[in-house]
Amino acid sequence: MTQELTINKKINKINKKELILAEAATLFKEKGFGGTSMRDLAEKVGMEAASMYNHIKSKDEILELICFKIANQYISQLQEIENTNQTFQEKLNAIIGLHVQLIIEDSASVSVANNDWKYLSEEKKNQYKQIRKSYEKSFANIIEQGMENGEFKKMNVSVALFTMLSSLRWIELWYKPSRDITPQELEEDLKTLLMQGMLKEYRE
Amino acid sequence: MTQELTINKKINKINKKELILAEAATLFKEKGFGGTSMRDLAEKVGMEAASMYNHIKSKDEILELICFKIANQYISQLQEIENTNQTFQEKLNAIIGLHVQLIIEDSASVSVANNDWKYLSEEKKNQYKQIRKSYEKSFANIIEQGMENGEFKKMNVSVALFTMLSSLRWIELWYKPSRDITPQELEEDLKTLLMQGMLKEYRE
Repeated sequence: MTQELTINKKINKINKKELILAEAATLFKEKGFGGTSMRDLAEKVGMEAASMYNHIKSKDEILELICFKIANQYISQLQEIENTNQTFQEKLNAIIGLHVQLIIEDSASVSVANNDWKYLSEEKKNQYKQIRKSYEKSFANIIEQGMENGEFKKMNVSVALFTMLSSLRWIELWYKPSRDITPQELEEDLKTLLMQGMLKEYRE
Repeated sequence: MTQELTINKKINKINKKELILAEAATLFKEKGFGGTSMRDLAEKVGMEAASMYNHIKSKDEILELICFKIANQYISQLQEIENTNQTFQEKLNAIIGLHVQLIIEDSASVSVANNDWKYLSEEKKNQYKQIRKSYEKSFANIIEQGMENGEFKKMNVSVALFTMLSSLRWIELWYKPSRDITPQELEEDLKTLLMQGMLKEYRE
């Protein structure tokens, strides 16, 4: 076998795995994690169940891969935002954008990560919770620093944090492309709604 | 039996029923609806299971009573707010207050109504969803009218509605008396966070 063929085969394998994960996320969102069988998934992907096991070990592994893929996207993009020299207002705006964009790009996987993480194994569930906690901590830090330097009004940091997080959470439950709103308008409305309550001085 | 005694007996019966509902809500919140048995409940209330059935028929009936009690409180208080001559800003402020107060007063029942309504019988579940839909519609109407008369910024009504509703929803999951915030501060912070995004002209 030539080297090129081997590489093509590898790419093919990665793509197949990506495809399996994407179809699995859609099924989990539709029918629930418990309500989806590996047989359903094989049918949806258009593969024999036996050959699907060349790519993934089990339904549990699929759930793990989806949850941690999404968690890591949130974490790495938040770190990028933290490391810029933007004002805290700009950072919060960027976080709102991050949440909207991840949901628009891959709403099924975000939905699985939000709702089905509780079916992870004990060990993985604890890891997942740790990542979520560290995300909330970094988010809260930005709010707190913005209060300290006078950009944001002084108020209870947890109240501000959870108001923002829960407002960003429902989008995944509500948004679909057929809604009478573009992703840009959605992002703009959320920034208007959420940022002006935080800011000490708001300029349109 | 004198009339007075009969009345006392009735009051006693009502109080017992209230007590059973209150303890049931606490148990459902702690252990889940599915994880709570009538035996657990009888023990918590300090009654024989047999005599508890003089007051309520079944676990399903308890769930129904709790869910519809809460739903009716939200609906009737929203109607009172709608029927005042307040500005739309004042009406939204009052709705924020209503949500915070119901959670502070009876967080276990609100939690059951929010999370366990899905275990209602098909018929009751449909009724419950209808009430919730009509609540959302009235809430959306206030937002829409405020946009039309120029108090609120023009934006997507559903985005404004669900941002507010989800922000009010997490309180039940987070608030407990041991938190480092008074109910009044919580209400104030939420009004600051949520109202200023809506208002065209904000005056402190």
